[in-house]
This record gives sequence, structure tokens and C-alpha cells, in this order.
Amino acid sequence: MNAITFLSPVNEQIKLVEERMREQADFAHADLRAAMEHLIKAGGKRIRPSLGLLVGNMLAAPLEKLVTLGAAVELLHTATLVHDDLIDGALLRRGTPTLNARWSPPATVLTGDFIFARAAKLAAETDDLRLMNLFADTLSIIVNGELTQMFSARGLIDRDNYYKRIYAKTASLFEMTSHAAAMVSPANDEIIKCMREFGYQLGMAFQIVDDILDFTGDQTSVGKPLGSDLHNGLVTLPSIYFAESNPTDADILSLANGGWTNHDNMTRLVDNIRASDATRKAMQEAENYIDRAIACLGNIPQSAERDALENLAKYVVDRKI
Amino acid sequence: MNAITFLSPVNEQIKLVEERMREQADFAHADLRAAMEHLIKAGGKRIRPSLGLLVGNMLAAPLEKLVTLGAAVELLHTATLVHDDLIDGALLRRGTPTLNARWSPPATVLTGDFIFARAAKLAAETDDLRLMNLFADTLSIIVNGELTQMFSARGLIDRDNYYKRIYAKTASLFEMTSHAAAMVSPANDEIIKCMREFGYQLGMAFQIVDDILDFTGDQTSVGKPLGSDLHNGLVTLPSIYFAESNPTDADILSLANGGWTNHDNMTRLVDNIRASDATRKAMQEAENYIDRAIACLGNIPQSAERDALENLAKYVVDRKI
Repeated sequence: MNAITFLSPVNEQIKLVEERMREQADFAHADLRAAMEHLIKAGGKRIRPSLGLLVGNMLAAPLEKLVTLGAAVELLHTATLVHDDLIDGALLRRGTPTLNARWSPPATVLTGDFIFARAAKLAAETDDLRLMNLFADTLSIIVNGELTQMFSARGLIDRDNYYKRIYAKTASLFEMTSHAAAMVSPANDEIIKCMREFGYQLGMAFQIVDDILDFTGDQTSVGKPLGSDLHNGLVTLPSIYFAESNPTDADILSLANGGWTNHDNMTRLVDNIRASDATRKAMQEAENYIDRAIACLGNIPQSAERDALENLAKYVVDRKI
Repeated sequence: MNAITFLSPVNEQIKLVEERMREQADFAHADLRAAMEHLIKAGGKRIRPSLGLLVGNMLAAPLEKLVTLGAAVELLHTATLVHDDLIDGALLRRGTPTLNARWSPPATVLTGDFIFARAAKLAAETDDLRLMNLFADTLSIIVNGELTQMFSARGLIDRDNYYKRIYAKTASLFEMTSHAAAMVSPANDEIIKCMREFGYQLGMAFQIVDDILDFTGDQTSVGKPLGSDLHNGLVTLPSIYFAESNPTDADILSLANGGWTNHDNMTRLVDNIRASDATRKAMQEAENYIDRAIACLGNIPQSAERDALENLAKYVVDRKI
């Protein structure tokens, strides 16, 4: 299973999405157009617009609306990354220099703002008020989640907090995308609800797998050092499973008191988590989310698009980056 | 003429607008709620929502939509100020500490993003797609204007550039507010067009007067040193008029070559502009904009609300802060 399997049905449509994204800077200052081009070229797998296209194609939604939705969602995602990379001082993303690596913080802040504005404009162009409302709500949820994480004590372990965090960070946008793609189709309310649920389950699994790859991934493809979340005081699902099985582990106990700032101890903890069954348990949980996602497809007639969506779901847990 | 004269008809409605603004952080993290409260308390004269309320009341628009629109517009304005103050490193605004004076840059960036998101949500809640489109376009215009200003050479004089800049910075939001308030009313297309024009003319005048007050204002009320625009390399209408009358002035000639960075020379230039008739000419131009704004009201029946709108227009050129 690789990205090509689930993306091939929408390869051509994704090009339309990228074209629509690019057009959003057409009237803007030349430097801003160049920044947009850089960001589009540095883009990832386009998993969010692919999700929207696959769901919408399956439910016979008009392509024009799906392309607009896909561009809106991907630009919203891009704008949050532009501000996140600035905030984190990250100089590379997916092996490509970030905007803040080349531009001043002020220009980077404003470029993110501009991309938010263009994403909102695209959402408005779908001519669907429910979609516009969903879009604005999702943006609020994402940003409130980031602020909550910023204001929260680092290194504390709380499973409920973890689920809320990954919902805000990732699953909310997957949910919105799948929901919105169904909303602009002729599908009935029950199917729309199913597709919203599909996006939610997929998004939760996606972030859990991301968090597992922080421990197990190939360092070059993940693009950051192993265990970087823990070194940054961010406790994710594998750490939570490890803590539950090893409640008296000294490194785990130290987390609440800032122990995550001790690099050697955290390197040891990362090794111990990798050697334990914690990542396997976390992966089992991600697979449960995917099983529930696939179950959502149960009352939709078999089609090539439904198969592609199932492949996308399977890819989310099988992927290596 | 003072702020109270034109604001009294909408005093109570402005409280509803502020309440709607405040509610936007209800579900958010406690620190974010506190930031919103701080920003609302530090708010200015609420001239933008007042404009929307006065136009909408005059045209019998539903109050609920005007309050939502007013809160959307004022939050959009607030979000741009939060990011601007961060970018400029400003520690005070209207005598109150800015958000970035108290919070880290990351928290300030995200708070601005959150307020953008809530403004977009409110715009969506007006249930009017045209308004939503207008709103997103205006946000793009404002941010593109800021980026264009940032990327442009400082100290260069160009009248056309100046008009474009103040349109993007100020008049676009005034125009959108007045336009949108008319759009949600039962007024016909001709009246809607007039009110859009009214907002445009008012906004252009408003920014020109702001730029004049940078030269002539009472330093305490304006809240920044006299001539701070020129010291920052920002050429505004009084400087343009002065340059047109004094094309061989050495300080003016120096601007294109970075002369604005010489503090003593710029202090002399500010004094020379103040002693010239440049600010009077600029004020005449602002008054012409206001005359055109008031002319837009010509085919609207006389009413207390129309009078209030005329008072608002007159206040824009008579104000001292």
C-alpha cells in the first residue's frame, strides 16, 4: 500500500486543486505570489483535499465545488503550518525550507494571514452557508487547540487531554473536509452524518500514527529526531501507554516536574518506550479508529470510489511517513 | 462635534456588539478569554460597527444582523491590530498595553488567528453569502496591502501608491461595512451602491485625517511622537503636498535614498511640513471626500438616522484623535 494506490483516482483533480490554490495569489504582490508558489511546491501528499475529492466523487458531488473545497481546506492547513513553523522556529518542513527560514517574522505572519483570508474566500465561493460555518468553526477549534496546548503545562500525562488535542490539531479538519464534501453532494442526511464520522475516525487515526512515527519512524523521512515530541515535553499516546504499564518508572514520574527538559533521561525514556509494547498498543488503537472509519462506509453501495476511500483509510495506518 | 454626538443613537446597540464580540471566546481557553476581554476593554470608538449600525438602522435592516456584522467587522479590525502591533513591536495602543507587551510572540500570533477565525464565523452567521464573500475579499485586500507596504521601498513618494495604500488599510473595511449593512436591509440596489460609496469616501477621509494628525495632533491623544510616519519612512498625504510645492527641498530629495533614517533631518522636515500649507491642503482633500460621502445620502429620505450618519461624516474631519 502506498500513496499512489489511493491517490491515483484523484491525481488529475488534485492538479485542479493546486491550480485553484495558486490563483488565490494572482492579484497579490509579486513576493506574495512567489511565497504561495513555494508553499504549493513544498506541499505534502494533499491527503485532506484527496479525502474531500474521494468522498465527493463517491457521492456524485459537483467537481467544481469539490475543487473549491479542497483548495480551501488545503490553504487553511497551509496557513496554520506557516504560523506554526514560525512559532516553533522550524527551518525545514518535508525537507524544504520553511517560509520563516527565508522571510522575516512580520512577513511570515502576514503571509499566513493572507492565506487564511484566501481560504475563507474559497469557502465562501462554495456558495454554501453551512459549509462556511463549518469552515470558520474548524479554524477556531484548530487555533484554540494550539493555544490551549501552548498554555498547558508540558510533560503532564492525561489521556482525555490527548484525545482533545489531536481532535483539535488534526481530526477536526479531516472531519470537516469529509463532512463538507458530503454536504455539497446530493446524499441524504444519514450518509452525510456517516461521512462526517468517517473523517473524524480517519483524522484521529492519522494523528495517532504521526505520534507513533515520532518514536518508530525512519528519521530521514519523518524529518525530525526520534522522540522529538517527548524532548519537547509533548506526551503522546505511546508515552501514555508506557506510563500506564510502568507507573513507577522514574523518567515517567519526572515528567510532571519538568523532567522532559533532561535530554539524557528523555533519550533513555524514548528507548524504553520503543523497546516496550507501547507503540504496538497505540497502533492497535489507530487500527480501531480505521476499522470504525471503514464501518462508516458500510451502507454505501460498492464502487471504485468507495474502494479508493477504503484504501486511503488503510494507508493511514500503513504509511511510513 | 464630538464622538458622543454621532454615537448616542447607537450607544445601546454598541453594547450588544461588544457582548457578541465577548461571546466569541466563551468556549475558548481561559487565557484566551482574558485576552479577548482585555482587547475589548482597550477598544477605541467603535467607529466601524457604529457606521454599520447607523447605515443599517437608517435602511431598516434587522438589528440582529447588524450586531453580528458589527462584531465581525470590529473583530476583523482587532485581529489585524493584534498582528500589526506584534509586527511593529508596539507596546501601547490608545494608552493601553498591547497584547504583545504582555504575551509571547507565539501566543500573540495565535490569538490574532483565533480572532480572525471568530470574525469569519460571525460573518458566516449573518447567513448572507454575498456578505461572506465581501468579508473574505476585504480581509485579503487589507493583508495584501500590508504586505505590499512591507515589501515596498520606504520613503518613496507616489500619490497613486498612497491612495491604494489607504484604501487597503482603512477605506476597504469602511466600504465593506457600509455596503454590507445596506445589503442586509430591504434597500434597493441603487441605495446599496450609494452606501458602499459612502463607506468608501468616509474611509478614505478617515485615513487622510489620521495621517494629518500624525503631524498636527496632540501628542498625548495621538499616542505616538509627532511625525512618526515620516521617521518610519512612511510618506503620507501632507508630505506629498509638501514635496509637490518644494520639489528641490534637500530632505524631500533625500527620502528616496533612505534619508528618512536620519532623525535630525526628518525632525526638520516634519517642522517644515507643519509650518507649510501642506496639512491644510490635505485636510481640504479629506473634506472633499466627506462632501462626496454626504452627497451619497442625497437620495435617502431625511431621518434622525440619516442626520446621525451625516454627523459621523463631519466628525471624521473634525476629530482631534
